[in-house]
Amino acid sequence: MENEKKVTFDDIAKYTNFSKTTISRYFNNPDSLTVKNQDIIAQALVDLNYHENKLARVLANGKSEFVGIIVPNLYLHYYAEMLNQILNTYEQFGYKFLIFASNGNSETERAYIQELLAYKIEGMILLSHTIPSEELASYQIPIVTIEREDRYVNSVNTDNYMGAVQATSLLFKNSCDVLVHINSTVQKDVPAYGRIQGFQDTCLENRIPHELIIRDLGHSHQEIHECMLEIYEYLKKTYPNQKKGLFLANDTHANHMLHIIFRDCGTLPDEYRIIGFDDSPIAEQSIIPITTIGQQIGKIAYEAMELLVTQMNERKKRRPKPQTELIHKSITPILVRRETTD
Amino acid sequence: MENEKKVTFDDIAKYTNFSKTTISRYFNNPDSLTVKNQDIIAQALVDLNYHENKLARVLANGKSEFVGIIVPNLYLHYYAEMLNQILNTYEQFGYKFLIFASNGNSETERAYIQELLAYKIEGMILLSHTIPSEELASYQIPIVTIEREDRYVNSVNTDNYMGAVQATSLLFKNSCDVLVHINSTVQKDVPAYGRIQGFQDTCLENRIPHELIIRDLGHSHQEIHECMLEIYEYLKKTYPNQKKGLFLANDTHANHMLHIIFRDCGTLPDEYRIIGFDDSPIAEQSIIPITTIGQQIGKIAYEAMELLVTQMNERKKRRPKPQTELIHKSITPILVRRETTD
Repeated sequence: MENEKKVTFDDIAKYTNFSKTTISRYFNNPDSLTVKNQDIIAQALVDLNYHENKLARVLANGKSEFVGIIVPNLYLHYYAEMLNQILNTYEQFGYKFLIFASNGNSETERAYIQELLAYKIEGMILLSHTIPSEELASYQIPIVTIEREDRYVNSVNTDNYMGAVQATSLLFKNSCDVLVHINSTVQKDVPAYGRIQGFQDTCLENRIPHELIIRDLGHSHQEIHECMLEIYEYLKKTYPNQKKGLFLANDTHANHMLHIIFRDCGTLPDEYRIIGFDDSPIAEQSIIPITTIGQQIGKIAYEAMELLVTQMNERKKRRPKPQTELIHKSITPILVRRETTD
Repeated sequence: MENEKKVTFDDIAKYTNFSKTTISRYFNNPDSLTVKNQDIIAQALVDLNYHENKLARVLANGKSEFVGIIVPNLYLHYYAEMLNQILNTYEQFGYKFLIFASNGNSETERAYIQELLAYKIEGMILLSHTIPSEELASYQIPIVTIEREDRYVNSVNTDNYMGAVQATSLLFKNSCDVLVHINSTVQKDVPAYGRIQGFQDTCLENRIPHELIIRDLGHSHQEIHECMLEIYEYLKKTYPNQKKGLFLANDTHANHMLHIIFRDCGTLPDEYRIIGFDDSPIAEQSIIPITTIGQQIGKIAYEAMELLVTQMNERKKRRPKPQTELIHKSITPILVRRETTD
């Protein structure tokens, strides 16, 4: 590589008998040339063994085609799959992704954003939730957030409220005597709060006996297991001989609860019905496939990029119009019926 | 942003009374200036509200600080966690990552590599296995592969053979009458083949009765489940009243097998002992936590980056030494004892 002679626009111009301006136009605005001339130059690039340097183009026209992404981690399947689907939008939009995992540290996250800006990203997608959206908005570049507090920025979120309505209605139709929603403390300005609100509203509207169990459910496997064990013992004692419909905040929690019941009873008895949230692989791979509210991750990723691309394109116009109103897109979740409900 | 006046080297030179050459040296070779002069320029950048453009520096000195990564997908936890750990090396090495998911398509992968090269990546880490290593080597840039055929490129892999020896020895010590390894067809030049070889050698050396079940185990949840069900029925019939030690190729398969046995027996009877591979979350989250061979993913990611950085640094020297011998690093796996073995 080191000894390879660098092919310049001059070389291409001489080889094709075009002017350097024409060569430059080929790279920055190819449609301003005839198809025939485009073909001549394309062939010359092959003949001369020209290696495109897109970074040079970036400096020439300011379009890096980079989008920065910050995820909290890739340990949780939800973030990994979202990133997967965002990467797949390359086929539609052509943007390349510079990615950081912030591990929930806001100072690290700020440093990463500075680094992304130094590399002239055209826009940013955030899944992490450590930096307030007001601060994000102050960076003055196109931003779309996914499933986090989004008061001052554009966002795409699952319709969590609708998901909770779907789950609660199904448990109700399964003739449960009492419905229970188990969740951790969720801030009201976070989209996932809709899961609590949707459960509560549906129960109240239909006068369904219900209980909301909101508490710190732990983070490690062991902590979650112990919390779920306690809650199981409590439910057994509090609602004996009643059919209990359990709506859990996510599939990991639902899987823990199912395993506890299954180990206690040798099966999932009629007395319990269970629904999780997310449709992560664990729901399908549990000892009994778990009914769940599936987020349309592919659709969320696509809509987020489309929203971002619209803003990035606006900025490339000679007189970009400032965005007058924030856009918050809401994607309907899908009920995935498996074997833990009728 | 659009209306913000761009601060040029000229502006900084005028403001500090240094020459433009000095300003340029500050960005490309700061140590060639005195600390005092570095401070004066640094302050000027703040005063003038100068935004660093690292892309411009790249063009000036050829160091993009980009590393390209190609993963097959992020759906499988193994790839997601490996990417997570590679991203975390930013703290040590400062390299930024441009990432593509190739979804196992070699033509897509070739297009992605061209795109990465056009963005002047300094090196590349590959986890996908569609392109032969001989072709990868022809790209003439530093490459490290992880857990794939690596005859012509540097690589970091788990010591799969050692992992199989650990698993087989533990099942043997658990007084199993017969050991069974269940795997799909694996090419001999892929590191994971060591799992088969290690099992077979350990059984033969210790004269342990054993069987190797190698067949297409399917890809979807349903396909895998049906294969495992068939194998379970076969084992029950073939080895009645014998203690069977099952070593499965990965935790997903081990989880399926455990669930089938548990649903049949209401527990994991003494007649079965099970070990998986990978230490993925499913092993811990199964109805009984599964003993497994854990890959040291953090260590693999770090070693891969270190190996890549060494090569990338060599290339920046005035007279880089060509690599005379390929390096293949082998990382010892760790036996994670849980409840499916004694």
